Amino acid sequence: MKIAIVNGPNLNLLGKREPGIYGNTTAEDCFHQLVSKYPQVQLVYFQSNVEGELINFLHANGFELDGIVLNAGAYTHTSIALRDAIAAITTPVVEVHISNVHAREEFRHVSMIAAKCVGVIAGLGMQGYGLAVEYFLGKQ
Amino acid sequence: MKIAIVNGPNLNLLGKREPGIYGNTTAEDCFHQLVSKYPQVQLVYFQSNVEGELINFLHANGFELDGIVLNAGAYTHTSIALRDAIAAITTPVVEVHISNVHAREEFRHVSMIAAKCVGVIAGLGMQGYGLAVEYFLGKQ
Amino acid sequence: MKIAIVNGPNLNLLGKREPGIYGNTTAEDCFHQLVSKYPQVQLVYFQSNVEGELINFLHANGFELDGIVLNAGAYTHTSIALRDAIAAITTPVVEVHISNVHAREEFRHVSMIAAKCVGVIAGLGMQGYGLAVEYFLGKQ
Amino acid sequence: MKIAIVNGPNLNLLGKREPGIYGNTTAEDCFHQLVSKYPQVQLVYFQSNVEGELINFLHANGFELDGIVLNAGAYTHTSIALRDAIAAITTPVVEVHISNVHAREEFRHVSMIAAKCVGVIAGLGMQGYGLAVEYFLGKQ
Amino acid sequence: MKIAIVNGPNLNLLGKREPGIYGNTTAEDCFHQLVSKYPQVQLVYFQSNVEGELINFLHANGFELDGIVLNAGAYTHTSIALRDAIAAITTPVVEVHISNVHAREEFRHVSMIAAKCVGVIAGLGMQGYGLAVEYFLGKQ
Amino acid sequence: MKIAIVNGPNLNLLGKREPGIYGNTTAEDCFHQLVSKYPQVQLVYFQSNVEGELINFLHANGFELDGIVLNAGAYTHTSIALRDAIAAITTPVVEVHISNVHAREEFRHVSMIAAKCVGVIAGLGMQGYGLAVEYFLGKQ
Amino acid sequence: MKIAIVNGPNLNLLGKREPGIYGNTTAEDCFHQLVSKYPQVQLVYFQSNVEGELINFLHANGFELDGIVLNAGAYTHTSIALRDAIAAITTPVVEVHISNVHAREEFRHVSMIAAKCVGVIAGLGMQGYGLAVEYFLGKQ
Amino acid sequence: MKIAIVNGPNLNLLGKREPGIYGNTTAEDCFHQLVSKYPQVQLVYFQSNVEGELINFLHANGFELDGIVLNAGAYTHTSIALRDAIAAITTPVVEVHISNVHAREEFRHVSMIAAKCVGVIAGLGMQGYGLAVEYFLGKQ
Amino acid sequence: MKIAIVNGPNLNLLGKREPGIYGNTTAEDCFHQLVSKYPQVQLVYFQSNVEGELINFLHANGFELDGIVLNAGAYTHTSIALRDAIAAITTPVVEVHISNVHAREEFRHVSMIAAKCVGVIAGLGMQGYGLAVEYFLGKQ
Amino acid sequence: MKIAIVNGPNLNLLGKREPGIYGNTTAEDCFHQLVSKYPQVQLVYFQSNVEGELINFLHANGFELDGIVLNAGAYTHTSIALRDAIAAITTPVVEVHISNVHAREEFRHVSMIAAKCVGVIAGLGMQGYGLAVEYFLGKQ
Amino acid sequence: MKIAIVNGPNLNLLGKREPGIYGNTTAEDCFHQLVSKYPQVQLVYFQSNVEGELINFLHANGFELDGIVLNAGAYTHTSIALRDAIAAITTPVVEVHISNVHAREEFRHVSMIAAKCVGVIAGLGMQGYGLAVEYFLGKQ
Amino acid sequence: MKIAIVNGPNLNLLGKREPGIYGNTTAEDCFHQLVSKYPQVQLVYFQSNVEGELINFLHANGFELDGIVLNAGAYTHTSIALRDAIAAITTPVVEVHISNVHAREEFRHVSMIAAKCVGVIAGLGMQGYGLAVEYFLGKQ
Repeated sequence: MKIAIVNGPNLNLLGKREPGIYGNTTAEDCFHQLVSKYPQVQLVYFQSNVEGELINFLHANGFELDGIVLNAGAYTHTSIALRDAIAAITTPVVEVHISNVHAREEFRHVSMIAAKCVGVIAGLGMQGYGLAVEYFLGKQ
Repeated sequence: MKIAIVNGPNLNLLGKREPGIYGNTTAEDCFHQLVSKYPQVQLVYFQSNVEGELINFLHANGFELDGIVLNAGAYTHTSIALRDAIAAITTPVVEVHISNVHAREEFRHVSMIAAKCVGVIAGLGMQGYGLAVEYFLGKQ
Repeated sequence: MKIAIVNGPNLNLLGKREPGIYGNTTAEDCFHQLVSKYPQVQLVYFQSNVEGELINFLHANGFELDGIVLNAGAYTHTSIALRDAIAAITTPVVEVHISNVHAREEFRHVSMIAAKCVGVIAGLGMQGYGLAVEYFLGKQ
Repeated sequence: MKIAIVNGPNLNLLGKREPGIYGNTTAEDCFHQLVSKYPQVQLVYFQSNVEGELINFLHANGFELDGIVLNAGAYTHTSIALRDAIAAITTPVVEVHISNVHAREEFRHVSMIAAKCVGVIAGLGMQGYGLAVEYFLGKQ
Repeated sequence: MKIAIVNGPNLNLLGKREPGIYGNTTAEDCFHQLVSKYPQVQLVYFQSNVEGELINFLHANGFELDGIVLNAGAYTHTSIALRDAIAAITTPVVEVHISNVHAREEFRHVSMIAAKCVGVIAGLGMQGYGLAVEYFLGKQ
Repeated sequence: MKIAIVNGPNLNLLGKREPGIYGNTTAEDCFHQLVSKYPQVQLVYFQSNVEGELINFLHANGFELDGIVLNAGAYTHTSIALRDAIAAITTPVVEVHISNVHAREEFRHVSMIAAKCVGVIAGLGMQGYGLAVEYFLGKQ
Repeated sequence: MKIAIVNGPNLNLLGKREPGIYGNTTAEDCFHQLVSKYPQVQLVYFQSNVEGELINFLHANGFELDGIVLNAGAYTHTSIALRDAIAAITTPVVEVHISNVHAREEFRHVSMIAAKCVGVIAGLGMQGYGLAVEYFLGKQ
Repeated sequence: MKIAIVNGPNLNLLGKREPGIYGNTTAEDCFHQLVSKYPQVQLVYFQSNVEGELINFLHANGFELDGIVLNAGAYTHTSIALRDAIAAITTPVVEVHISNVHAREEFRHVSMIAAKCVGVIAGLGMQGYGLAVEYFLGKQ
Repeated sequence: MKIAIVNGPNLNLLGKREPGIYGNTTAEDCFHQLVSKYPQVQLVYFQSNVEGELINFLHANGFELDGIVLNAGAYTHTSIALRDAIAAITTPVVEVHISNVHAREEFRHVSMIAAKCVGVIAGLGMQGYGLAVEYFLGKQ
Repeated sequence: MKIAIVNGPNLNLLGKREPGIYGNTTAEDCFHQLVSKYPQVQLVYFQSNVEGELINFLHANGFELDGIVLNAGAYTHTSIALRDAIAAITTPVVEVHISNVHAREEFRHVSMIAAKCVGVIAGLGMQGYGLAVEYFLGKQ
Repeated sequence: MKIAIVNGPNLNLLGKREPGIYGNTTAEDCFHQLVSKYPQVQLVYFQSNVEGELINFLHANGFELDGIVLNAGAYTHTSIALRDAIAAITTPVVEVHISNVHAREEFRHVSMIAAKCVGVIAGLGMQGYGLAVEYFLGKQ
Repeated sequence: MKIAIVNGPNLNLLGKREPGIYGNTTAEDCFHQLVSKYPQVQLVYFQSNVEGELINFLHANGFELDGIVLNAGAYTHTSIALRDAIAAITTPVVEVHISNVHAREEFRHVSMIAAKCVGVIAGLGMQGYGLAVEYFLGKQ
């Protein structure tokens, strides 16, 4: 089983800045913990702040992978293009958010992409990525 | 660790009717699978179609339990009373939906309770309950 | 043919109070008139002010009855849970309102349940219940 | 008792085209069945695709008739002029829709004329016309 | 000076029915009073319940007349086609309403045509037509 | 007959500045023309840029005058206090606007005071004040 | 004089949990203080988390009591059924809120029931109940 | 204890006009009754129809008084400036309305100032002022 | 191949009035140019200002023609009846607008009929009609 | 060069109250610092809590001054009258806000006057006034 | 004549995946067909999934080309930046959509760029590109 | 002190095209004037039409710089990702717009990023960049 962890805008800053607030776990650390925890899964990591590059990644990998765990960050709430890309590919996508978007500003309560994903995991912190991987494993 | 699985309106029909569509897994079957899979967790099950009885359950159990996995069904989208109950208790609550509510009617895209829950798992089928239990285990 | 007449919140007060305004016909009188008029139909009566008890009734009877005549009162305009219950059962439901809801406050112009009912009869007074029974008879 | 059956735009096509979908019953057939079923009622039929001609008909007949059964088709949702005509005449009007407008596009959930009609019958198919006639008979 | 008085839907009923409420003055009486009061003006009268016929009248006369006094009735609030017709002709149009539309239902507070008229006179009863004629005389 | 002409905010600038655009007619000129044209009417003039002073004037004079011609300027669109003042007094008020407010910004399409006035005259320029006086004369 | 104090959802938790935040005064304590302070009034107490049971209480008592002090909690903002119950009974109802609902989430700024109550007291803490009792005493 | 009773626009007309409707109690009468009833309180009265003068009063007195009972009339629904003034002073303010604003036009359901007041008393007539004074006394 | 060019309200004025603005090309000229350019197509022309007559034309011809090029003018934005007519016939319809409706008033940005047409051509001037004919030819 | 600094409602409280929060700089201090810093500019200061007095000031000075720096406080968000005054005068106006209004309540995100000002400076504290003066100097 | 065909996000997938649904025609095939059909036109092709790269292309080519045929895909509905780019360049742009966007999700009914394009062709499939080229040829 | 001037989409065209309208000052000219005027400040310039590259720049420089002057162009109104980037970095950002966005289309009245910036300067032309630099200097 081959799964990609895809992070969108600003998620490259996780754990690198303001460790007093966000902790020391970087997105890369999180990825490596997943690699250790799920040795039976072939995991790939991708991050970009550019909407179109996220689309490019989905196009290039979304017909071969078994699952994509996508934290599209702020593009979640605005990107119809990303929605169309998810709808166009054949790999199932699980939308993940580290924070509970429903407890934040109102414009974060709407997801443009959720309707084309399999489902959503939000607010469960870094654990959310792992639970999404578990989901794909449970589907086998 | 003691966790309750709480189901709201209409979820008592799961797996009992229209097995061709929803499969044969009843909510009780699902609960028993969780009991088997997580022997280290003390699991409790409650279901009601009455909004106020769900609130009563949260009041009665929401100060002792370690976690509540709540699928509030349609009350998710309308019940401020349930939201207030979740905010009043001390046990953390994870909101679960079997179907991807974001791919259904627009009035199901809004959750009145999510802001007071720890987070949300939606669209991942019966697996969603188990992933929520995993979350609480991972938090230990 | 077996049909239930189901009344929601506040309809238990019909004809009992303020006869100068609403007349002396109680919901029970209305039911007994239907029983007399349609001897060929097996009629059942249920009323509750509790949303969840209306759902319970639909679950318990909505797979055996030939028709349900439902005046959900104020829950018509707010209850997604009732909508889901109607969608989940196999008995067809006709929505009835005694008054013309479209000539009242704006929040009464919206029905959360109509889309899952066969149809709606509104504003035709107590006659509306009988016309709904006629409809089910005409469908035979 | 003298009652008019009035059909608005596009209802002249009923039963004439696409019989595989809508059946073979034309609006005229439906009218003749009513004539047979209610010999004690003097029934009149009128159809027009022109909003102003429907208003003309209501003006010309809406002070002598005992009842009008009006399926205003799409003008139901947009015509304030028709609403004003119904309010201006003395004959009571029952609004009828063959399909369940509440289960269709959102702009069909609003009726501009219902507030000035006695009531509404929607979604009960061709039977709706007959039930409206029954209503007027029951009012005698 | 040549001016047309143009009345839209339902205004043909004025004064003919329910004289106890609306008085005995018909639209024609009102017109003849204007003819008597303003002998120096060549007055024309037109009424139709059909939106398109009102447009036809504006096209046929809206390049020669010196002024049009238009009470478009309910089409005021819905007709973009009438707005376009007023914008297309060269004769200036004054919008008149007998009742105070701002004190009635909210959908009557919006005028689709006012922006293309010279101005509006509303709520001043039958006098409104004469004041509009005065306006055109004052403009000479 | 005693009538007041009341002007609200910014109308004191009329005709004094930018005569190339607005002409040389000041609000005072306009008032004096009315005085000349209607010698049989006792005319009073009041202008203020302060919302509360307009209310004070209405309170002080709105129980003795036979009519008030009110151009409330921008307060038309925002002042519920002015609306309440008009509703509280016994003198009838006609709302006047020099420009066609319906052809300007959308927030000028709404009048908070019109529902409590007898009616509205808009877009007919300085003539509007005189037509409103004519209306009161015609009502005698 | 006989008055009921009626509390809706979640108000049973007052003073029992988190005394550091909400103080030690329970709803029952509050009720007993009222009993002591107003010996001339016959006071009744009722609380339920179930919307329909609150309606049942109003039906059963709302024709004999002299006043009802109702804190409907979250149902204030969503329950048309409760609104209808208040409108149906003859006992006047005063709506009370302990917190200032206008300083909280926007959905708490709307009350579905206020229009059918005599009036509202909000934000004055536990004192609000007593002030409402004072109101009924002052009305005698 | 020193408390001010502050009345906004149009409240100077209370009891002076239309005694058949509003009774003979003027705002001043009401104030004097409060003075008699609460001899232990030093009461001050202020009324203005000018928004800015109400603000001036709050600035001048809102740092020394023990409480302000404010009926801001129509400015309640529109004045952010008044809201800011209430937020800026240190004296607590209780918002009072004589009528039940929630049973009137929709634009009266929103209060711009309530969020910055301690709380609201609405619909309890002239008694509302006294109950607000009671509140401040109870807070001592 | 048989195609109809159908024009709605106000399009009869094209090229006849204000040639300085709109040019000298009338709708008829435009039609004759199409006849010359596409001799292989049997072209029909229809224009009406009456909504219902446009519907009548679609009903009468919309089962035999190979294509309809429809410029519904202002009815585009308001007519659900026209939408229903297009949905009811079997001939495919292409919606055409001479001007770029998206660069005009906001109410012209919405088309009630587009969803039932094959597609839309807007803003390409008189050429739009010819391009729609080309489309039908290309579909052969 | 002659420039006015104009402050609206509540800005007279700056620096006088709660120095621990807002500092000790009063609006007058701020004005005197500007006088010292820009000796080449003739500076005028005006403050009022009354909307109409701000308009009066603009009328009286808005044709001679070279620039106006206007902090309209809360009237920024509600006053169409102020907008009209700014549009009517010839002196250019720069809108200034001390706090970042976009980071506060949503009703502070809208400015009714900005469209008629040259531009806006918000959130830059007391410095904002000086930067606006710099702008006018830079325009010379 | 030199014309560019510009495709936005996800349009690179056309014809390459799911040929059963979308056919085998790729965007490149489509482009080559245009090259063959219009030998007199110098055609250029560009595609990007990155919003900013589309803007870069418009900047680089939008002052020399004779026409741009732009299918901006999902950016059509969200990109003000693209709208500004189209407004900034001098080459006219025709907006093209392969599918009928008006028959899809509501957020696809709005185009942010159409107001700055010459016009729009939607729903006419791959033919739309060619018709846009025809338009530019016809303009010569 | 080290400050970056960051320009978003389409601002690379400034002064290069249509000098008759926008003048000959390019963004680079503007930058060099700032360099000359503020020799004591170390100024950096960056421009991109790609949303993600602007985010990349903020990430790379937003922890070392003393201030960022950001004209995000059209992304101002749509980019939550940019908002998140501004919130994530430690360097304070001042939002600048050359034109008065409040006097343009309504969608330009909303800024997604302003709430996370220190403040906003809009409508003051090229001077706005310099005033923002002055602000940072004044803060030292």
